[in-house]
Amino acid sequence: MEDAGIIIEQLLSGDRRAVARAISLVENESILSKEILKLVYGQTGKAYRVGITGPPGAGKSTLTNKLAKLYRMQGKKVGIIAVDPTSPFTGGALLGDRVRMGEVELDEGVFIRSMASRGSLGGLSKRAREAADILDAAGYDIVLMETVGVGQSELDIASAADTTLVVLVPESGDGIQAMKAGLMEIADFFVLNKADRPGAEQAVMSLKMILGFRAHDAESWMPEVVQTQASNGKGIEEVAAYIHRHRLFLEVNGALERRRKVRLEGRIRELIDEQLHFDFWTNERLSELHRTLELLLQRQSNPYDVAAGLIDDFRASNGKI
Amino acid sequence: MEDAGIIIEQLLSGDRRAVARAISLVENESILSKEILKLVYGQTGKAYRVGITGPPGAGKSTLTNKLAKLYRMQGKKVGIIAVDPTSPFTGGALLGDRVRMGEVELDEGVFIRSMASRGSLGGLSKRAREAADILDAAGYDIVLMETVGVGQSELDIASAADTTLVVLVPESGDGIQAMKAGLMEIADFFVLNKADRPGAEQAVMSLKMILGFRAHDAESWMPEVVQTQASNGKGIEEVAAYIHRHRLFLEVNGALERRRKVRLEGRIRELIDEQLHFDFWTNERLSELHRTLELLLQRQSNPYDVAAGLIDDFRASNGKI
Repeated sequence: MEDAGIIIEQLLSGDRRAVARAISLVENESILSKEILKLVYGQTGKAYRVGITGPPGAGKSTLTNKLAKLYRMQGKKVGIIAVDPTSPFTGGALLGDRVRMGEVELDEGVFIRSMASRGSLGGLSKRAREAADILDAAGYDIVLMETVGVGQSELDIASAADTTLVVLVPESGDGIQAMKAGLMEIADFFVLNKADRPGAEQAVMSLKMILGFRAHDAESWMPEVVQTQASNGKGIEEVAAYIHRHRLFLEVNGALERRRKVRLEGRIRELIDEQLHFDFWTNERLSELHRTLELLLQRQSNPYDVAAGLIDDFRASNGKI
Repeated sequence: MEDAGIIIEQLLSGDRRAVARAISLVENESILSKEILKLVYGQTGKAYRVGITGPPGAGKSTLTNKLAKLYRMQGKKVGIIAVDPTSPFTGGALLGDRVRMGEVELDEGVFIRSMASRGSLGGLSKRAREAADILDAAGYDIVLMETVGVGQSELDIASAADTTLVVLVPESGDGIQAMKAGLMEIADFFVLNKADRPGAEQAVMSLKMILGFRAHDAESWMPEVVQTQASNGKGIEEVAAYIHRHRLFLEVNGALERRRKVRLEGRIRELIDEQLHFDFWTNERLSELHRTLELLLQRQSNPYDVAAGLIDDFRASNGKI
């Protein structure tokens, strides 16, 4: 039997294998998971977390890769969490660790972890956040959290990051599309990648115009658009500079703490949801639910009465657990 | 004070204003909402529900529009629900009802409703499903549920539809991107729109190859790729034929009932979640949660212990409500 305390001790000393082991235990919801997370939490708060998101094909992996290299040159330790809400029927991440991160993978100062969805998107951001905690505790200075642009997971990753950058390409089009996709709200700034392609200038202008309409938030940070060509490294330093500028902005006016508080609150709510579900969905109530489905199909009952009945039963029984 | 029974009576007789009123009351969570939904539910089950989704810019609105026209020519009444997870800071749908549906909007046999997110994606699919119920009860034969491709909302809309088609364009690229975006699982078939653009053949081949890898589901339906140019109507009949083929397939082997059971189950779970949240998050527990955030930031506690404490309190008090 492994011991959570020993794993924590090892990972705090920077042992990569302990980091990998801890993430696996947490990802697989081992019985040690909660103990590890509790112990880890006390050691977090030092790493800066950057969310990198945007539509599929925008070049997020390349950008992440190049950013990691740059941070390494600055002597920072970098953790990378690639959230990959891939098809469950392939049985895992399409583009696994080995394929995606050629240049940085052999560097001891970089820790890369891909996380695939295994059929449910819901818990993915939670597991990514927990992995980020482990990397934070293990002394990684920067944690880059990359997710392919599949809506909710982008929004979730944004809520797990201190700074979120949204990567677009000229083809992913005008600001209206980004706006429709909900990206405007979560972007602390935009990266227009593949900026050598036709339409780049127009895309930047269109984005800036839309950003001009955006209500400034309470802290009056104004998102900008940075142009890059990640594949040859152009603009990467500017992206890093922009992340830094945003970080300073957040730190100076206390917004970083406020963001982190919001995150903590979301996290606790998630834990509570999990437990409530666990408590509610006893085998008895599940059976009762399944029994009613036939009646519902025949319109002999309705979902609202069925839900109310189950809730009543829960209320009556819950005090006795 | 309005009366739910009267509204239902009117909408069952096909009164468009009653339909609009009922959807508004439900959308705004009026106190009549639950009563309306209960009464409506008994009259549902006749309409066929088609989910239309895919990445932004794929031409879903145009396709929906043309499909609606075709169904009208077949004498069917068509309901359209356009789920638009637009930016909350614009205060509503960017492309409202009036703008998006030029050709069909004046037709009495078509009912169009846009639903914007108002800042939360979560409840959007629920409201869309409820609107679909109302249209179903009001005698619309086909309900087209269109959503811009923003991840979770696509997946949710799929779970609300009998047949789901995923619209791609040659640029939205190879099957791998679609796979990453989780679209492969939800597509009953693919529509490659703007099929006159360069790369169309290659995109179709790539999609088909990936579909070949897909594990056939229990019912052994094999999704195909239909090419369209929605803007000039090319391929629309084929899309309608494909929807029909899928419907027959589902009906013949009982899969339609199974799908609808799964949907009902999800719906009841959602109602229960709502109620549990309402019961759990009393002002007292919310205050307690907020009190702890400062301690958490200073690492004097951890999210896991805070959640456990709140859960214990709920368990102890719940029997007494």
